[in-house]
Amino acid sequence: MGKHRIVLALGGNALGDTLDEQMRAVKTTAKAIAGLIEKGNEVVIAHGNGPQVGMINLAMESAAKTEAHTPYIPMSVCVAMSQGYIGYDLQNALREELLDRGRDIPVASMITQTLVDANDPAFLDPSKPIGSFYSQEEAGEMTRRGYNMKEDAGRGWRRVVASPKPIDIVEKETVKAMLAAGQVVVAAGGGGIPVKKTEGNHLKGTSAVVDKDFASAKLAEIVDADYLIILTAVEKVAIHFGTPEEKWLDALTLEQAQKYIDEGHFAAGSMLPKVQAAMSFASSAPGRKALITLLEKAEEGIAGKTGTTISQ
Amino acid sequence: MGKHRIVLALGGNALGDTLDEQMRAVKTTAKAIAGLIEKGNEVVIAHGNGPQVGMINLAMESAAKTEAHTPYIPMSVCVAMSQGYIGYDLQNALREELLDRGRDIPVASMITQTLVDANDPAFLDPSKPIGSFYSQEEAGEMTRRGYNMKEDAGRGWRRVVASPKPIDIVEKETVKAMLAAGQVVVAAGGGGIPVKKTEGNHLKGTSAVVDKDFASAKLAEIVDADYLIILTAVEKVAIHFGTPEEKWLDALTLEQAQKYIDEGHFAAGSMLPKVQAAMSFASSAPGRKALITLLEKAEEGIAGKTGTTISQ
Repeated sequence: MGKHRIVLALGGNALGDTLDEQMRAVKTTAKAIAGLIEKGNEVVIAHGNGPQVGMINLAMESAAKTEAHTPYIPMSVCVAMSQGYIGYDLQNALREELLDRGRDIPVASMITQTLVDANDPAFLDPSKPIGSFYSQEEAGEMTRRGYNMKEDAGRGWRRVVASPKPIDIVEKETVKAMLAAGQVVVAAGGGGIPVKKTEGNHLKGTSAVVDKDFASAKLAEIVDADYLIILTAVEKVAIHFGTPEEKWLDALTLEQAQKYIDEGHFAAGSMLPKVQAAMSFASSAPGRKALITLLEKAEEGIAGKTGTTISQ
Repeated sequence: MGKHRIVLALGGNALGDTLDEQMRAVKTTAKAIAGLIEKGNEVVIAHGNGPQVGMINLAMESAAKTEAHTPYIPMSVCVAMSQGYIGYDLQNALREELLDRGRDIPVASMITQTLVDANDPAFLDPSKPIGSFYSQEEAGEMTRRGYNMKEDAGRGWRRVVASPKPIDIVEKETVKAMLAAGQVVVAAGGGGIPVKKTEGNHLKGTSAVVDKDFASAKLAEIVDADYLIILTAVEKVAIHFGTPEEKWLDALTLEQAQKYIDEGHFAAGSMLPKVQAAMSFASSAPGRKALITLLEKAEEGIAGKTGTTISQ
């Protein structure tokens, strides 16, 4: 296997709901990522923050009501805080894993802003689940408090927020500089802090959470990555998922992927955005490959042995 | 004035208690820092987080009690979150100010860990004020909730936490790489996330807040800075402060500074740690200068026209 520039998109759900779960998750994650780095690949790690940013936002809003001297904190700032909350654990675990393998390679997380369009229609249709799963009764109480709640694929109720598409990664030159220096960077955490252009050079935070797969695809495009690896809970993408005709997919062209989307094979809020993000990267230039697989199968996936690859 | 490598230590108090105050503060701050960058200086920005980390920690603890699905968040993670909370605003404001001056220079904040000694005696004597100022009545209630509260120089009551000395900045190689790439980096925010070595290569977060002046001095030493500029609310350091014999100081040797400390001229928790941090940098190598002054006087200070300089 040659040496590649890889952007890894790590799921926020995979990081768990509590710090204990997160610390265990980053250990496993660090082992798989260190394996990729040991092989000489350049790695950028992007991650989701759904459960974490929901928890932080709710805590800050709750405290603003009950504690003296506690200000209201908008969602954009909560995303920034979640980058610290998650990035710290990730960089710490990966640093340790690399040192344990005798590799003294610097790892650091970057506070990253993602530019979005102020007129993105997503602002009118909150769809991205954040925070914990609630019971129906709890969800009713959350609705009375003014939150948008949606039932999530039979797993319980969750808050939903707007999720506009990423246009640019503001701190892209820093990500490039770290790669050029042979370092590992955690960037675009939680899809990046969503900001919109106002007058002049001003960027203003907006109440949203950018999808981490789309943000990762944009980042991978900007840093001219060879691979975007979207990590998920299954080894491959399937059509007719969960039915007797279920079929696991190995390699897809953009046309094939679009055909399966049109036929309604992929669930909204689950596999659909992953396939769309993969297509967006693969379509940005010939030779770019997007791989959807399990973290522990990423190496095999690059070697063409497993996972679902989407390319031109 | 020549071109210098500068570490700026920005006060957490100067950033205000609320996001509105912080946004106004970072605008003013960005103008002064952009001035230094325009002159060709390499700049690393470190900042405090006293009010902010106190607010975050209290909010998270409060929410852990009142909200379902909200975990306990230790102080180290709150420091990480404060790096996002502050770094986002700082890098955003500085990016805008530089672009307004026609300078497209990347700025990014780095999640930074600071190594401390698990046996630092500071763990036994909580002394660093964090959070808001409380009335005596509110402070009584906070004490009943288990917090350490101390009266702060006649300005009200504040929580105090342990503040061990920094031994190393874990992400130092990333700071160096960003400087080498001609970028501006916000690092060691809030003194850095305090971590201690346990077994092997493991670093574990500890319940403390490192003093940002000492962390900045350590960072300045490590990146081989020419100047450590400790920003404060006065243009110069004084002896006999607030008395008829008050005398403002221009340049101090390490011996003179130590003499004034021994004579009790500098207030603990206020000017004393700034002078001590300045001395620690100045004593680390000949030629290194520490400057204590107002942010808007930093340029004049480097030109030798104002501020208090400490050097060998």
